[in-house]
Amino acid sequence: MHLAAIVAHPDDAEIFCGGTLAKHADRGDKVTVVYMTRGEYGGGSDTTKAEIAATREQEANTAAETLGVETAFLDYEDGRITYSLENRLQIVDTLREHRPDIVLTHFRDDMHPDHRTTSRLVTDAYYMSSLPLVETVNEPWEPQNIYYVGKPTSSFDPDVYVDISEYQSKKEDAIRDHESQVEWLQEHGGIDAEFDDLIEGVRAQARTLGRTRGVEFAEGFVPLHKHTTAYLD
Amino acid sequence: MHLAAIVAHPDDAEIFCGGTLAKHADRGDKVTVVYMTRGEYGGGSDTTKAEIAATREQEANTAAETLGVETAFLDYEDGRITYSLENRLQIVDTLREHRPDIVLTHFRDDMHPDHRTTSRLVTDAYYMSSLPLVETVNEPWEPQNIYYVGKPTSSFDPDVYVDISEYQSKKEDAIRDHESQVEWLQEHGGIDAEFDDLIEGVRAQARTLGRTRGVEFAEGFVPLHKHTTAYLD
Amino acid sequence: MHLAAIVAHPDDAEIFCGGTLAKHADRGDKVTVVYMTRGEYGGGSDTTKAEIAATREQEANTAAETLGVETAFLDYEDGRITYSLENRLQIVDTLREHRPDIVLTHFRDDMHPDHRTTSRLVTDAYYMSSLPLVETVNEPWEPQNIYYVGKPTSSFDPDVYVDISEYQSKKEDAIRDHESQVEWLQEHGGIDAEFDDLIEGVRAQARTLGRTRGVEFAEGFVPLHKHTTAYLD
Amino acid sequence: MHLAAIVAHPDDAEIFCGGTLAKHADRGDKVTVVYMTRGEYGGGSDTTKAEIAATREQEANTAAETLGVETAFLDYEDGRITYSLENRLQIVDTLREHRPDIVLTHFRDDMHPDHRTTSRLVTDAYYMSSLPLVETVNEPWEPQNIYYVGKPTSSFDPDVYVDISEYQSKKEDAIRDHESQVEWLQEHGGIDAEFDDLIEGVRAQARTLGRTRGVEFAEGFVPLHKHTTAYLD
Amino acid sequence: MHLAAIVAHPDDAEIFCGGTLAKHADRGDKVTVVYMTRGEYGGGSDTTKAEIAATREQEANTAAETLGVETAFLDYEDGRITYSLENRLQIVDTLREHRPDIVLTHFRDDMHPDHRTTSRLVTDAYYMSSLPLVETVNEPWEPQNIYYVGKPTSSFDPDVYVDISEYQSKKEDAIRDHESQVEWLQEHGGIDAEFDDLIEGVRAQARTLGRTRGVEFAEGFVPLHKHTTAYLD
Amino acid sequence: MHLAAIVAHPDDAEIFCGGTLAKHADRGDKVTVVYMTRGEYGGGSDTTKAEIAATREQEANTAAETLGVETAFLDYEDGRITYSLENRLQIVDTLREHRPDIVLTHFRDDMHPDHRTTSRLVTDAYYMSSLPLVETVNEPWEPQNIYYVGKPTSSFDPDVYVDISEYQSKKEDAIRDHESQVEWLQEHGGIDAEFDDLIEGVRAQARTLGRTRGVEFAEGFVPLHKHTTAYLD
Repeated sequence: MHLAAIVAHPDDAEIFCGGTLAKHADRGDKVTVVYMTRGEYGGGSDTTKAEIAATREQEANTAAETLGVETAFLDYEDGRITYSLENRLQIVDTLREHRPDIVLTHFRDDMHPDHRTTSRLVTDAYYMSSLPLVETVNEPWEPQNIYYVGKPTSSFDPDVYVDISEYQSKKEDAIRDHESQVEWLQEHGGIDAEFDDLIEGVRAQARTLGRTRGVEFAEGFVPLHKHTTAYLD
Repeated sequence: MHLAAIVAHPDDAEIFCGGTLAKHADRGDKVTVVYMTRGEYGGGSDTTKAEIAATREQEANTAAETLGVETAFLDYEDGRITYSLENRLQIVDTLREHRPDIVLTHFRDDMHPDHRTTSRLVTDAYYMSSLPLVETVNEPWEPQNIYYVGKPTSSFDPDVYVDISEYQSKKEDAIRDHESQVEWLQEHGGIDAEFDDLIEGVRAQARTLGRTRGVEFAEGFVPLHKHTTAYLD
Repeated sequence: MHLAAIVAHPDDAEIFCGGTLAKHADRGDKVTVVYMTRGEYGGGSDTTKAEIAATREQEANTAAETLGVETAFLDYEDGRITYSLENRLQIVDTLREHRPDIVLTHFRDDMHPDHRTTSRLVTDAYYMSSLPLVETVNEPWEPQNIYYVGKPTSSFDPDVYVDISEYQSKKEDAIRDHESQVEWLQEHGGIDAEFDDLIEGVRAQARTLGRTRGVEFAEGFVPLHKHTTAYLD
Repeated sequence: MHLAAIVAHPDDAEIFCGGTLAKHADRGDKVTVVYMTRGEYGGGSDTTKAEIAATREQEANTAAETLGVETAFLDYEDGRITYSLENRLQIVDTLREHRPDIVLTHFRDDMHPDHRTTSRLVTDAYYMSSLPLVETVNEPWEPQNIYYVGKPTSSFDPDVYVDISEYQSKKEDAIRDHESQVEWLQEHGGIDAEFDDLIEGVRAQARTLGRTRGVEFAEGFVPLHKHTTAYLD
Repeated sequence: MHLAAIVAHPDDAEIFCGGTLAKHADRGDKVTVVYMTRGEYGGGSDTTKAEIAATREQEANTAAETLGVETAFLDYEDGRITYSLENRLQIVDTLREHRPDIVLTHFRDDMHPDHRTTSRLVTDAYYMSSLPLVETVNEPWEPQNIYYVGKPTSSFDPDVYVDISEYQSKKEDAIRDHESQVEWLQEHGGIDAEFDDLIEGVRAQARTLGRTRGVEFAEGFVPLHKHTTAYLD
Repeated sequence: MHLAAIVAHPDDAEIFCGGTLAKHADRGDKVTVVYMTRGEYGGGSDTTKAEIAATREQEANTAAETLGVETAFLDYEDGRITYSLENRLQIVDTLREHRPDIVLTHFRDDMHPDHRTTSRLVTDAYYMSSLPLVETVNEPWEPQNIYYVGKPTSSFDPDVYVDISEYQSKKEDAIRDHESQVEWLQEHGGIDAEFDDLIEGVRAQARTLGRTRGVEFAEGFVPLHKHTTAYLD
């Protein structure tokens, strides 16, 4: 099986679904994280965007090794992902190139405009990816489902939980691999940082989700297509 | 595995989840339908309640044979199921007697008062069934989950679908086994009958649910505990 | 009275509200279906878009004859309808040209990007159509209401039902008039096709909606302005 | 046509739907207000409950004359309406005695326990009233629909509006007929009084609802069965 | 100011709102925890209910000292709190006896039947407590507001957060004071125990709520009356 | 403290939150209303847009004097505000120029496209305004919160109320200062006018909101970040 997480910035996949990605990789699934941008806004005023981009790409690759997954980078600009027919077509082609069975991406109501736009691009591309007359470089492909990730709000209320108890420490390691980012968030905060102690917050969140399902740590997902099962379990 | 559907009246289980029950029975699971009442209101004014109760119990047993499941009857009065501590305790003991892994019952917002009360009794009993100090005849028991069934309304919006394409005809046969009821509903309608052609309506509903999930016929469920999965699929 | 359905692709009006359109036409109302595109993506890789567009325009006209309604075609590209001030102004002018009392269009949360964009363009144009300073070729016009159509999901939950029992077979005929499309959907599926037997699925849906309202077949709508009535009925 | 409003206390019908009742009466419909109680809690500590009950019954009858409607009084105790099988059966018989086409009653989520219980009793009785085996003094009867009334909250969001512009002053007169109550509410407040100037508040509410529908004054309703219409309008 | 938390069982107040209670006590507010029951079901089969009740009352008093608050015990039976007019009147009198400005209690949709019933009893009593004709031992009294507490679910979504960062450790100490319960929950679980490490789970929850508000630890509340403020802040 | 209301058209701030603005100004807070456009569509066909813009700017300034607040005008075209990266960046710079503690703007689901786009631009700009690498003329700045304003619909349900009883008449005066608009709305209606008597409608709305909170007149807000409080009150 092949999972592809398509996220806006380095560390988005690690924070939102790093445990699930590591778990799938561990049982032998192919797992790819596609980063829309290199997160070049995530730095202080004493660095250039190019320097930050290079640092964050490297950190993303290190984190990917920690999780046992592969990476790919599209070339959108951080903070400037837009919804256009051209960008939508590029994501169609991205889906057709990687040919994942399962796609993970941001939830539609996320507060970050890049997350929101990524969610919409991936969702619409998903529907178009199988149509033969939507022509791109790669051949048509239809993933089975999309699972959305996000921060709990009244509109993001997970329908599906994955037990990541045995992968929580690997997830935390992968987040720590984003050294520049952890450092910068502690100092500066910003759109994705709500509290100085990032790792503790992520762990508390996984524990809180886990508690609702009787496991130690969990990650939560909202599927595009609701759960169909051969038998109740 | 053992499934128990606890429903208010004969034919409720058949209509709401007959395909799923037949499917589980077919793979060798133990399946029990517990009827709270014998549905003695479901008749015309020229019969006695006792006659109707006898007829409907027999029809429920015939339908159960069709589906390959077992039946049990509690002795509540049709149209008069009440929520009381005593009744709740009786349902605790019913759960402990049958010891199902999975419980199916009515959804909380169902319009029929008997369905609503059954839903609440079963849900509260579920939580109490494992407590050693809640003493009843049988030993404590903790089912894994409850799956609720109901008619689609804005508040009953299924989270889980079971493909019953191969069991739709068996389901329809089981509904037809409730001869007195089908006949009575065609003539009379009432709280559970919304249209004269019961079977066609049930089939349309299963097809409509199926379409949303890409299968021919489906039944939909709202689980008490949301779906936890080892891996996304 | 004049109804205008403004939909993205040939067959959208027929599937979502064909019975209602036929019923209004039958009592002498003027009914127009405005197609934003000619649905040129709805074909296999062995045909050109131009060929498909020509075929589908012809099929739409045939279906319109079946329903007793008129058609008009705007020249948007299938799969590429965008929200822009210019497109919005064009829809303002479309409303002013046709001068409908009632407008039907897609629901805002539809999964198809063309449906979603059409919904937003029509809704915003509706509000601007009456403003004298919004200048277009035709004179200002204010329709009374918009009724949205869509596939049942938790967010599309009809508030208004139209009994189409006597028009269900005409609706099915009109869908069958889209020969190329029915054929293609059976083979190929895609964003609008959820199951191979299109007609049976549409009929099941109308029956399921009808059952909730005590009629044989119904179509459901969400009005922009809620129902105001002189008297309760 | 016959409308029956079944409400918990004198003045409930006048405040929630007095304009609509007056309008229906004015076109010749039979309109009955059934009061579950005589509102004997609505007084100060220097009066007896019996005195208040007598005063309020008289005021309700005066208000009914103002509106042109009839009254009936059941004998429940104010603040002590309970849900029981016996009370439900009594309401079944009340429906069968008055035989209304349309029933109006409180919304299920009203904060006043008497309103909530009345809502549930009337709703469940509505479903049972047509069943021949549910035996009461009067013959089976099936009203067409229930329209719920209530104070706007997130859960009471009207689906249907009635234009009462020409009946607003009659409605206000009917409220003023509850002299003891208006006086008492100004002094004392309590569960039904949210502001000292009752009439102005009621008028503001009707104006606010009216504005959403383009009329001067309106009352809003949530129907049990959604609106089915022969034609869109 | 006087806060009263009215909760079903010993440890409910500590877990749901212990930090907020300690904080108010610390600034000199009077804080009372009223326990509906002594939680006598929270024990193993080798103890009697009376023994457990005695132990838990003592633990609740110890925890109250830790938090700096007072306790009171009503004499309802654990697992058997019912909604009746008599019980509602008793809670009216409880409110009038303690005369709190602010009441805290369980949220209406809590899964535990005792929590749900307590929520309804307290809410309805709140509305009746100010009515002079609702006669009880103590004089009429009107609290300002109710704040509901509960476990996060789709329906319990806090509107108000209290920063308890400086009281988190005191809260944890108070939970640990329920020695018998912590021990029993680790062994046995049950309706209130979702994971073996109670304290870590509670801390994760407070941290997760805190993160959404930019503080280290928080507790969340749903107010009966929404927030009214003299000025935005 | 500094409040800035960023609204699409002259009179939007006055109608939606004029009482709150006047109240804050009155206690000495700095209050700025930033108008995205000069509302040049709000006139008849016998005037030019330039004339209307000039008139409405003047009226906005007069109204601002009445309320005791300052004004600023951006140069977007009425009816044509678009979401683009450039416009978003301009609003980032607007926030950084005015440096408000609290921002007020339109609610996301408002029916007017300009209101909706303004809401989205302001919300996204709010998140970006603090990031040092998002470079604009002015220095980074982080407001504390956004409060959204809108017309009550099922999705705009206020969480926070401000008592404006003492400022209602000043609010009405400020609305009357928009002479051209009041006149035009009475004649013509349009997207923002739902009833001919604008002032009475606004007053009814404030009274209706006030009633839910026990004050004479109120305005309602939905905050971006929910209410955090040191102590319950």
